[in-house]
Amino acid sequence: MTKKPLILVTNDDGITAPGIRALIDVMNEIGDVVVVAPDSPQSGMGHAITINSTLHCSKIDVDHGPQTEYSCSGTPADCVKLAVNELLGRKPDLCVSGINHGSNSSINVIYSGTMSAALEAGIEGIPAIGFSLLDYRWGADFEVVKPFVKEITLKALENSIPENVVLNVNFPQGTETPIQGIKVCRQAKANWVEEFDKRTNPMGREYYWLTGKFVNEDQGEDTDEWALEHHYISVVPVQYDLTAHHAIQNLNTWQFE
Amino acid sequence: MTKKPLILVTNDDGITAPGIRALIDVMNEIGDVVVVAPDSPQSGMGHAITINSTLHCSKIDVDHGPQTEYSCSGTPADCVKLAVNELLGRKPDLCVSGINHGSNSSINVIYSGTMSAALEAGIEGIPAIGFSLLDYRWGADFEVVKPFVKEITLKALENSIPENVVLNVNFPQGTETPIQGIKVCRQAKANWVEEFDKRTNPMGREYYWLTGKFVNEDQGEDTDEWALEHHYISVVPVQYDLTAHHAIQNLNTWQFE
Repeated sequence: MTKKPLILVTNDDGITAPGIRALIDVMNEIGDVVVVAPDSPQSGMGHAITINSTLHCSKIDVDHGPQTEYSCSGTPADCVKLAVNELLGRKPDLCVSGINHGSNSSINVIYSGTMSAALEAGIEGIPAIGFSLLDYRWGADFEVVKPFVKEITLKALENSIPENVVLNVNFPQGTETPIQGIKVCRQAKANWVEEFDKRTNPMGREYYWLTGKFVNEDQGEDTDEWALEHHYISVVPVQYDLTAHHAIQNLNTWQFE
Repeated sequence: MTKKPLILVTNDDGITAPGIRALIDVMNEIGDVVVVAPDSPQSGMGHAITINSTLHCSKIDVDHGPQTEYSCSGTPADCVKLAVNELLGRKPDLCVSGINHGSNSSINVIYSGTMSAALEAGIEGIPAIGFSLLDYRWGADFEVVKPFVKEITLKALENSIPENVVLNVNFPQGTETPIQGIKVCRQAKANWVEEFDKRTNPMGREYYWLTGKFVNEDQGEDTDEWALEHHYISVVPVQYDLTAHHAIQNLNTWQFE
């Protein structure tokens, strides 16, 4: 690529989160950057879109950097739709989402606002990568992963992400044990075992907080969970065609009338 | 199955929507029914879950039917989590979601609250089916599809839905042209071309409404869009392992350092 790529940056933790600021820093070294991100945290929003209320969007300047920035009232998927259809003059060469404060490995991809933005870009034909760090804290250290964000992004621009696929990249916590490298993986088969915390409000009415425990029974060494546990960065190719093609033959034996 | 199956019913249009009432009618003919559904419409919520606020749930009686019903403040995925972990005494034999007022064919599956409930059940190891009717109107005619809902549900209980798969069933409008039959399909490769309706509020601030046009360039006769257009019911097996396994080999040639 001879001229600078146009890079759309978004996230789900909100436009002022340290994770997106780190991502913007790296992208400013690679291309022309436009940020369109939620004005407030949107974690757990999955692939929600705003269809029954209005969307607002304001041009803002967060850190006097070279990037252009818009703060939006919607979900991560809304931000990508607004960026592509209203705010950017042309289709971006790449969309990056994150760096999320917390894991989006394994089944978490399906609840993830970070990955929903990347998937939305993919659906619209834009190469896309979601980045997440396995550290939920606002003060998580993103410096140590920045060189890897840059390497993966440059490789993606150079090699082209396969069609109808977006990348889900998760970083282990790199501050205590050094990162061992980058592994291409499949999504581990794991899930959350919910434990609702049931309480009673001052008016005597019961309510619940959703809590839960992540359970991974997938022992495969080709999974993202294995890679992260062994201090590797996991790169999972993710698709938005949800058809279980392997199941079609079975269903065809059901003999519907 | 000799004893009556325990069936969990939910949706995303809200517990009083005509679509879920029709679904409850049919399920009452098949098993013991517990309804746990949102207290208000949740369309477009994708796989959102409520992690930063509390959930409320009330036992209610909508129509004096034999089913047990709970109205919940959360998203469709929240309803399934609450049902399975707090409200039902045992794991249900089946979870059905819908009947949605409007299509969840093709790429719509990814934005769909109806299907997110079915996927959530699938992730928790419960056989699950999402039903949708291609008629957005509150007054849509669900009577004509009831026999097909029953047939598909009975076939699913009899044959068992393949592991790690949930069914996405869409009904064509059956009132003008008779339904031609049931087809097992793949998800068509189609997407929405957004057109934001930009307006100015009374205070002079700009805002947007998300609108759009559905564009299907997939000519395959094995797709859900083809089936629905030709007055067939589409049944797509859907998976929640989003790994694009076919792309792993390509990514392994990228030679990360």
